[in-house]
Amino acid sequence: DSKGLNFQSADKAFTVNIGGRIHADYGFVDDDYFGANNTGIGNEFGNGSQFRRARLGMNGTMFTDWIYELEINYGGADGDTGFTDAIIGYKGFDSTTIKLGRHKMPAGLEELTSSNRISTMERSMATNTFALSRFNGLSVERKGSNWTVMGGTWMGEGNGDTDNNNKDSDWGAAGRFTFAPIQERNSVVHLGASISYIDFEKVGGDNQNIRVRQRANRFVNERPVQVTYNDTKSANTYGLELATIQGPFSLQGEYFYRTLDRKDFKDADIDGWYILGTYTLTGETRGYRDGRMRTISPRNPVGQGGAGAWELVARYDELDLWDSSAAREAGSVSGLRGTKAENWTLGLNWYVNDNIRFMANYVDSKIKDSSPNDNTGKIKAFTLRGQVAF
Amino acid sequence: DSKGLNFQSADKAFTVNIGGRIHADYGFVDDDYFGANNTGIGNEFGNGSQFRRARLGMNGTMFTDWIYELEINYGGADGDTGFTDAIIGYKGFDSTTIKLGRHKMPAGLEELTSSNRISTMERSMATNTFALSRFNGLSVERKGSNWTVMGGTWMGEGNGDTDNNNKDSDWGAAGRFTFAPIQERNSVVHLGASISYIDFEKVGGDNQNIRVRQRANRFVNERPVQVTYNDTKSANTYGLELATIQGPFSLQGEYFYRTLDRKDFKDADIDGWYILGTYTLTGETRGYRDGRMRTISPRNPVGQGGAGAWELVARYDELDLWDSSAAREAGSVSGLRGTKAENWTLGLNWYVNDNIRFMANYVDSKIKDSSPNDNTGKIKAFTLRGQVAF
Amino acid sequence: DSKGLNFQSADKAFTVNIGGRIHADYGFVDDDYFGANNTGIGNEFGNGSQFRRARLGMNGTMFTDWIYELEINYGGADGDTGFTDAIIGYKGFDSTTIKLGRHKMPAGLEELTSSNRISTMERSMATNTFALSRFNGLSVERKGSNWTVMGGTWMGEGNGDTDNNNKDSDWGAAGRFTFAPIQERNSVVHLGASISYIDFEKVGGDNQNIRVRQRANRFVNERPVQVTYNDTKSANTYGLELATIQGPFSLQGEYFYRTLDRKDFKDADIDGWYILGTYTLTGETRGYRDGRMRTISPRNPVGQGGAGAWELVARYDELDLWDSSAAREAGSVSGLRGTKAENWTLGLNWYVNDNIRFMANYVDSKIKDSSPNDNTGKIKAFTLRGQVAF
Repeated sequence: DSKGLNFQSADKAFTVNIGGRIHADYGFVDDDYFGANNTGIGNEFGNGSQFRRARLGMNGTMFTDWIYELEINYGGADGDTGFTDAIIGYKGFDSTTIKLGRHKMPAGLEELTSSNRISTMERSMATNTFALSRFNGLSVERKGSNWTVMGGTWMGEGNGDTDNNNKDSDWGAAGRFTFAPIQERNSVVHLGASISYIDFEKVGGDNQNIRVRQRANRFVNERPVQVTYNDTKSANTYGLELATIQGPFSLQGEYFYRTLDRKDFKDADIDGWYILGTYTLTGETRGYRDGRMRTISPRNPVGQGGAGAWELVARYDELDLWDSSAAREAGSVSGLRGTKAENWTLGLNWYVNDNIRFMANYVDSKIKDSSPNDNTGKIKAFTLRGQVAF
Repeated sequence: DSKGLNFQSADKAFTVNIGGRIHADYGFVDDDYFGANNTGIGNEFGNGSQFRRARLGMNGTMFTDWIYELEINYGGADGDTGFTDAIIGYKGFDSTTIKLGRHKMPAGLEELTSSNRISTMERSMATNTFALSRFNGLSVERKGSNWTVMGGTWMGEGNGDTDNNNKDSDWGAAGRFTFAPIQERNSVVHLGASISYIDFEKVGGDNQNIRVRQRANRFVNERPVQVTYNDTKSANTYGLELATIQGPFSLQGEYFYRTLDRKDFKDADIDGWYILGTYTLTGETRGYRDGRMRTISPRNPVGQGGAGAWELVARYDELDLWDSSAAREAGSVSGLRGTKAENWTLGLNWYVNDNIRFMANYVDSKIKDSSPNDNTGKIKAFTLRGQVAF
Repeated sequence: DSKGLNFQSADKAFTVNIGGRIHADYGFVDDDYFGANNTGIGNEFGNGSQFRRARLGMNGTMFTDWIYELEINYGGADGDTGFTDAIIGYKGFDSTTIKLGRHKMPAGLEELTSSNRISTMERSMATNTFALSRFNGLSVERKGSNWTVMGGTWMGEGNGDTDNNNKDSDWGAAGRFTFAPIQERNSVVHLGASISYIDFEKVGGDNQNIRVRQRANRFVNERPVQVTYNDTKSANTYGLELATIQGPFSLQGEYFYRTLDRKDFKDADIDGWYILGTYTLTGETRGYRDGRMRTISPRNPVGQGGAGAWELVARYDELDLWDSSAAREAGSVSGLRGTKAENWTLGLNWYVNDNIRFMANYVDSKIKDSSPNDNTGKIKAFTLRGQVAF
């Protein structure tokens, strides 16, 4: 069926699923920021194509209670081949899943929703900056009928020469709690909160200069928003989530706040948020389970008498990496990069069937600088995606 | 069976094939060009081993009309891991296949014949220079009983910093038409023609210096033939194909012609061609379908009372990258590299069964230079391959 | 079952196995060598996490007598993606296996035992230095009821620019013989001997400076033990193996001796050895077959009324790369690196079931230098592994 290739032993103690995904992207970029503001970074833009994700993997169950997952990934602007999830897990305790290895740590509704299922081609700048994504560590998740709680801890990469690049964590810990006071087939209300602690890698016992930055989109390799805070020891991050699904409508928003703890300087406070609305023209309802959004399953797939499902999406998000009192101290650097971004994303999604989706996004990013000459500029992009998951 | 691992759902709406290929190469090189002609490039040769291709992938059908393919590749002189084909496709229209993603664009009989099935270990220098191979784009192919027509268009890679390396296309488009006036089991006549347009990446709105070059073989990393034409905007390429299969004999040839369109300089015209003959000592006939060559299936596989199939191959090919009137203008560079190549390839293939083939090739490449001191030299190589496809 | 995903055709002529492994490592390092001895290499240590191995692959049989194997690997300190085994093989002759492609050449009991089955997280420094591991070549192995003999030959990597890095072999050959005078279910005595010849890559016809070096553990990227011998043409290596399994006890040891053949200088003689003891607290016996150790299969897996199998391990190993009379000649370099290492490894293994194992290792490495100021120092590491094989 549409769920990929599945096998199980006669006693169901062993299962194997083999599958993958392809996200093929095409983009057209209009830059009124990098070139116009003399950032010294020109020609970094190309209209062009990109494999955002190309993955093959296996997962399944062993001896009933144990799980495994390994997925190879090719993609991104760098064109690197690596892997996404690689875990050993245990689900022998009631409603509880324990995972060891590389997997997503608890933080953020948009982050924890699969890239096959998010409503826009890219997650918001706030999510990409503050939600944790994948680390190599241990997590425990427990689920009730309408709540989830997940805690996790990890260690940073432990080989010598790639360690100290201004962003690596030595270790960290995080937790997330979600609650759905309403959770019916066509009506959901979701509340969530997360907290995380990151201890940054030291060099020779000294705190490092920590760079916080984010891309405007995946067709512009340079990050237009980038601030460096020197002498930074650790970060505390707080997130709040609110979402509702009402028939073909959905609305979701998240707010993130981070304090960078510095030794001899003032702590820096930075934040970001987004609000996202979706409307399914063909009437389907977005899925929701276990504190995560799921996808839309078209009632009338193409080739079975229908035209698939069609969905309209709009998102506004802001990211502010500039704490003026902390950043203006000696040693903090914003360079010629921007410090704040305000982004509009408009999207149209076509769900051909349960495996195939095409997406079109228009993204308008307004980048602001806090340097004396007060640069502002826009990066606009029109992007298309062909997506298959199997 | 020998066709890899295949699955289908009860209603045949979903199919999955999992498979791969290994091409393990061993080579012995004799250089009378790089060292003897003071190119400044020495010791670039190694007798040695190389995985030319090592691939694992999945492909199949979803909801009857939709297809997908994703294949991971390791190999080549660089030892990079990436992927070859990554596509979403649709075959719901009569005799028509639409593909989106990374796949071979329409150009060249030798190029469009699978690397598992070509008669020599490497394609001709002309094919490798002028046929398009894989790009990320959209193609449509329609097939009749004895003809095919395929059109495609693509966008170059769209991330900033790897864009502008003297060869990348901003976008392109191509078409190919084939016709087989005779298409019987033991007798085929094939005619083909292709045309393509490449628009090269610009930097800051300026045309770039475009480098045209080719390897002599895969055990010499440096390209002995290389010419750079500055201020080049685009390229138009034309190809002609002619082939026939008569019982155990086959003969095929292609001619390619390219015009490099330059803004303030004379256009450059370069070309290449090859002619290839094969003879199956054990009597089998080469396969042919849909405008592409197929492989030889041994009548008596090893282990089933036979010695497999044995095939003799000879190919002569030329590549001329030097347009003297255009190249001698200011700014065009041939360096100490050659500008023309004349190559003889002699081969013996052993088809053990439908999965396994061993190949031996002797390649004699004569490299000529158009610089005043008129360098010439030879690169000779004896190469062996163990091939398995599953 | 626990043996991964297996398929076979009705006549058993074709089989396919799809599987993989994950080794997720976490380490804590205490350096009293690099920093304390002014080696100029500081901060190369990180407590941290690392995927030691993450592999997915396919192998199987074709036309009854032919075998294939292809496995993609991600992992190691470098985080590279490549492949491990990639072979075509033939097993149509009695008790004989012929392999062509990239696979382990004959040398060393510890080396030839799968990384899923070795008793410590890492093999000994002696094995990692002197045993051959994987090369691209041809091998033939023949097995009797209680003996094995295997011979192999290979060619080094044959593309130009990565060839000449002070360690590559141009070609080589090796052989190994094993004999088990006692081979019962709970009692094994194993004897083995191996020999190999490596011909190092030359540059411009000249012998190169050959670097011999080894890591202390996988969380310290720099090799603390490293000696370079100039003008080295080839190496002859000899290995001896002795092992016994008696119920829950096992004891195994190996000794390696290498002579580096130099043209205008004295030959250099270097060596290393280890002794390893294991004791299974829960009573299981280590497996043994065909001259290789196998794993422990827990009698009472977790979740089936048991607590798995628990094993204690201790190993002592030495590596001495310093031949004082040869090394002190002009041109040989030990830099500020150590030349000898003495290592203690203590381990505790928990075999949860036939697929999952957790490991804890404490490694104490004493590094000695032969330079005038006679540096010594210790690198200690506590490391943990989660392992799943499927």
